[in-house]
Amino acid sequence: MAKMIVIYNEPTNKEGFEAHYFNVHIPLVQKMPFIRNAAVHKVKQAMNTNENLYLIAELEFGDLQEINQALESPEGKEVVGDVANLMPFLEKAPVITMVE
Amino acid sequence: MAKMIVIYNEPTNKEGFEAHYFNVHIPLVQKMPFIRNAAVHKVKQAMNTNENLYLIAELEFGDLQEINQALESPEGKEVVGDVANLMPFLEKAPVITMVE
Repeated sequence: MAKMIVIYNEPTNKEGFEAHYFNVHIPLVQKMPFIRNAAVHKVKQAMNTNENLYLIAELEFGDLQEINQALESPEGKEVVGDVANLMPFLEKAPVITMVE
Repeated sequence: MAKMIVIYNEPTNKEGFEAHYFNVHIPLVQKMPFIRNAAVHKVKQAMNTNENLYLIAELEFGDLQEINQALESPEGKEVVGDVANLMPFLEKAPVITMVE
């Protein structure tokens, strides 16, 4: 099992961010090949960081190779391209990690 | 469902960290009341951060209240206290988040 874990700081425009994130971005994510599960968690408390953490998304795949294949697919390229549409609502790009 | 997501940077002493983390810390975590699942993921790749991310642990509970009750239990206090035993192997304390 492998995951993409994506960590967003608090948006500068929460309403704008959430509208695009939940109505456009996540539906695009769910169309990616190899994706087994997508979960979005709101951060309620954070310790030992100066970052204003807001949202943690977890996208589950079979292994790291499936993550790369998903990102290289047409649907994956659409997801990556759509991150640019979230940037007007954010101070900085989300931290993206691949874990296994 | 609620989770504690704990993010460790690369240890200054990996062997020392891993020995204590996997042989002592995680077994203590698994003794906490209300815990439904504990998963430890190695970070294989990270983007949009200057941090040298190393490990992401996910502890699953029923809700945020169960997390607090778990941390206040004798077993939870032992887990929190044991973080101090990991610090000699680390440059800084792990980022701890509670999400739902």
